[in-house]
Amino acid sequence: MTVNEIKKYRKKDACSYCLGSFPTFELLRARPETAEMVLLHSDAKAELRKGLELACKGADIGIICSDRLVERLRDKDKCIVIGVFKKYECTLEHHANHVVLVNPGDMGNLGTIIRSCMGFGITNLAIIEPAADIFDPRTVRASMGALFGIKFEYFSDFGQYAKRYGGERENYAFMLEGKYRLGAFQHPEGKPYSLIFGNEARGLDASYMSVGKSVVIPHTNSIDSLNLSLAAGIGIYEFCREPF
Amino acid sequence: MTVNEIKKYRKKDACSYCLGSFPTFELLRARPETAEMVLLHSDAKAELRKGLELACKGADIGIICSDRLVERLRDKDKCIVIGVFKKYECTLEHHANHVVLVNPGDMGNLGTIIRSCMGFGITNLAIIEPAADIFDPRTVRASMGALFGIKFEYFSDFGQYAKRYGGERENYAFMLEGKYRLGAFQHPEGKPYSLIFGNEARGLDASYMSVGKSVVIPHTNSIDSLNLSLAAGIGIYEFCREPF
Repeated sequence: MTVNEIKKYRKKDACSYCLGSFPTFELLRARPETAEMVLLHSDAKAELRKGLELACKGADIGIICSDRLVERLRDKDKCIVIGVFKKYECTLEHHANHVVLVNPGDMGNLGTIIRSCMGFGITNLAIIEPAADIFDPRTVRASMGALFGIKFEYFSDFGQYAKRYGGERENYAFMLEGKYRLGAFQHPEGKPYSLIFGNEARGLDASYMSVGKSVVIPHTNSIDSLNLSLAAGIGIYEFCREPF
Repeated sequence: MTVNEIKKYRKKDACSYCLGSFPTFELLRARPETAEMVLLHSDAKAELRKGLELACKGADIGIICSDRLVERLRDKDKCIVIGVFKKYECTLEHHANHVVLVNPGDMGNLGTIIRSCMGFGITNLAIIEPAADIFDPRTVRASMGALFGIKFEYFSDFGQYAKRYGGERENYAFMLEGKYRLGAFQHPEGKPYSLIFGNEARGLDASYMSVGKSVVIPHTNSIDSLNLSLAAGIGIYEFCREPF
C-alpha cells in the first residue's frame, strides 16, 4: 500500500486502520507481519514517537509523519497515531474454547466482546454472517487492539461452523428461554466448549435450544434483557473463572 | 411545559426527553407524575398509539402528534415516540445496597450501568461529581428507561456520600490493585453494601484502598483493563446472585 492509497475505510478495502496508540502497539506486538505503516501526527510527544520507532524497527515498518493523513482518517476522538494493516484470515483451533457470535450487528459490541474474550482467556471467535465487519476501524478501536490477539473465522451459517468444529465440543446457547441458569451448573472438564450469543435485537432463535445446553443469565423482570456485550461479558467471565 | 418550549436538550433545562417507545412506556409506568406529554410521529402504527393512549389516560398526560417536534428532537435512530418529563430528585435508601459511580464520564456507560443495576436488583445509585448528566436523553436511552426505576443521588465528593450513608455498610472499591479477588470471597449477610467503580480512564485513585475492601476482577494480562460498564456489570452480577 502506498501513501496515496490511504483514504477513509470501506469494507471492500484490502487494508484497514487502527486508530490510537494503544491499539497500534497491540498491532505491532501481535500481528507485525500485517502492519503496512504507522501514521503519526505532529501532536505526538517525543517519547511516544520513540516507542513507536522501537516497535517498528525490528519489523521494518515505516513511520509516516503526516498531519493531513491522520486528520483525514481519524474520527472525533482526535487520535495522533494510526496503524495501517493488511486484512488477514485465520482459522480456529479445534481443541480450544470458542465464543460464537450469531449475526452481531454493532461494531462497538463486537469490539467490546473481543476485548472481554481476551480478558478472560478465550482467543477463538466464530462469527455467523450476516455480521458486523471485524476490520472496521470502529470494531478495532472498541476492541482496544485485542482483535490482533485472537483468531476469528466467519461462517455463512451455524451449521457450517458446527460441521467444521463440532464433534467433541459442548455448546452453550445463551437465550432468555434457556433451561440452565448461569452459575448454577458446571461445565464438565476435559471437553472444549462454545459459548453462543445471538443478535442485539433478536437474540438466538428457538432452533438454538437444540444445539446443546441453553443457558439463561438470571436477572429481574424489571428489564427485558441485558445488552449483548454485557451478557457475553458475564457469560465469558462465569465460564472462565481461572487464577489469571 | 408548553409545546413551544420544546427544543434540543441542554443540561440546564428543567425538562428532558426519553427517545423511543420502550423507555417512554417505562417512564409512564415508573414515574408518571414526572411525565409532561408524549410526542408521537405519524409513522407510529395504530397499536402503538393505542397502547400509549391507554398508558397516558390514567395519568392525564397529553399525546401530541407532531412529526416536526419528533424530528427536531430525535437523533439518527429515528424514534417515533418521545416522552417529555420534568427532571426530579431522589434520595437513596439507607439500608439498601448501593452502586457508587465516581466521576463517570460517558453517558452511554452511565445508562448501561443503570440497566445492569435494575437487571440484578440494585435500585440505589450514588454518583460522585463531576459526572455525566443522568437526565441527558443519551443516558436515558442507554438505560432503556431503567433510569425511571431507580433512586439516584449526586454528591460533590465521596466523603459527602460516606458521611450520609456510611456507618453500618460495607464498601467494596473495584480497582486493578484490589486485594480481594471477585468471586473468591463472600459478603457477610445482614449488612448492606456499596459497590464503588471509578472513572473510565482513571479508575479509582489509591485513596479508595482504605474506604473498605478493595476488589479486583481477575483477568489475563492480555488486556490492560475491562471497560467500565462491563466491569460494573460483572461486579453487580457477582454480588447479586439471587433466584430472580
